[in-house]
Amino acid sequence: MSGVPVSRTVFYISDGTGITAEALGHSLLTQFDDALFRPPIRIPFVNSTEKAREAAARIAAEKEKSGVRPLVFSTLVSPELTEIVHNVDALCLSLIETFVAPLEAELGVRSTHTIGRSHGLTDTSDYKNRIEAINYTFAHDDGVSDGGLEEADVILVGVSRCGKTPTSLYLAMQFGLKAANFPLIPEDFERNQLPGALGSHRSKLFGLTILPERLAQIREERRPGSRYASLENCRSEVRAAERLMKREGIRWLDSSSKSIEEISTTVVQEIRVERIAPR
Amino acid sequence: MSGVPVSRTVFYISDGTGITAEALGHSLLTQFDDALFRPPIRIPFVNSTEKAREAAARIAAEKEKSGVRPLVFSTLVSPELTEIVHNVDALCLSLIETFVAPLEAELGVRSTHTIGRSHGLTDTSDYKNRIEAINYTFAHDDGVSDGGLEEADVILVGVSRCGKTPTSLYLAMQFGLKAANFPLIPEDFERNQLPGALGSHRSKLFGLTILPERLAQIREERRPGSRYASLENCRSEVRAAERLMKREGIRWLDSSSKSIEEISTTVVQEIRVERIAPR
Repeated sequence: MSGVPVSRTVFYISDGTGITAEALGHSLLTQFDDALFRPPIRIPFVNSTEKAREAAARIAAEKEKSGVRPLVFSTLVSPELTEIVHNVDALCLSLIETFVAPLEAELGVRSTHTIGRSHGLTDTSDYKNRIEAINYTFAHDDGVSDGGLEEADVILVGVSRCGKTPTSLYLAMQFGLKAANFPLIPEDFERNQLPGALGSHRSKLFGLTILPERLAQIREERRPGSRYASLENCRSEVRAAERLMKREGIRWLDSSSKSIEEISTTVVQEIRVERIAPR
Repeated sequence: MSGVPVSRTVFYISDGTGITAEALGHSLLTQFDDALFRPPIRIPFVNSTEKAREAAARIAAEKEKSGVRPLVFSTLVSPELTEIVHNVDALCLSLIETFVAPLEAELGVRSTHTIGRSHGLTDTSDYKNRIEAINYTFAHDDGVSDGGLEEADVILVGVSRCGKTPTSLYLAMQFGLKAANFPLIPEDFERNQLPGALGSHRSKLFGLTILPERLAQIREERRPGSRYASLENCRSEVRAAERLMKREGIRWLDSSSKSIEEISTTVVQEIRVERIAPR
């Protein structure tokens, strides 16, 4: 082979959804140049010897086709299925098995080797809380409902299109938090007051702000050429929103270059919700 | 120590959000009895020696308080920070470092040891697609908009409260798919026809169904004592919806005992979207 590396096919294989395999695999691959990898192939629900053999055959076929060893990230729990899948010419990393042995030694008990448990439990209170939080967040987007704010774990505020909606949803989905959100609009700035419904929930408020240039870009995609999207208007709204949040003592962060995962994690830290559901 | 195990405190530590550490840690812990563990402590954004020392101090304090070694799942990328955090009396499992060495050997290149990359990239087309998908899904929940269905990657259909909304959101958030959803309502059953807007998007339709008993339970929480929630009505709606989907040749699955992660993963497999965004 020449000095130029051939890009590898990546497999995510699991007895459940494969979401955990992909999360860790993706984290690992971000430590290397993107060009080294092809788009991943997901093989979820590998929970029988037959499906394990099919998965092994797909990996072997890929090796045959590309001429280079694929990378296989698996979260299979069963040693039997792992053996079948990993019996191929590929780099196979067993994300669960690797750590089960040290955990067993530390805890002094054997693991249960139960398949598909991580994302398969629907009768737990954590799961129910999470679904309830999603429904709540849906019903309390963009200030559509003042009712039930006393149930909110957090209320995001900020100018239109600063990232409140996706962040609220992520807070609900990942952390099981009931996240309402309220836009701060020109009318609020004129009155120089928070929307009336928020006054009595001050401790739950968290602000998002954004660079005016970034905001103008986002709004421009939505309403090209509008006054709403103009840089001048965005500057004025952002300035007024920050002034209002400062005056009202609302914590805030700048969402401009942060992902919704980063914003949500920061919000959770800041509001110090200790009782959030484990995932 | 006696034969009864003392429950351990679990730490999730990361230079980024900690979401990957928690996903894999949670998967591992589901292989053991819940009673062995206390609610987890998350320490995200450990990206400096100072924060690493703070994290180590928190772990040490927990060991002191509880008398048993905590369990530490970390996705720290920097060897220096890992050394500081892991220099405590605890079981420390290094989820990234463990696999970086075999990957480096396989690929024949060194990793970049870049901190916080996994959930920190906002200027990629994948990330933008994902945010766009979330916004799309939000705007096309519960049949609120017929417009733009040609843009949808998938359109979920099913009776009211069978799980369409959380599944749609998960499809958008995890897989970057534009997922619209449409309720099947008594009026559709009377006409014995799909809602008019859906006729020209048949290949994107995917049905969810549910056990009438489970549906009645969910609806009862929403509207106690209503005809809408009665078992009789739920039976009749579910039967009619399944008949309609069968007649129209729509693939469907039963959501009754599946998590939104499992339903979404199955939908992705079924609709064979090959071009979905890697996470």
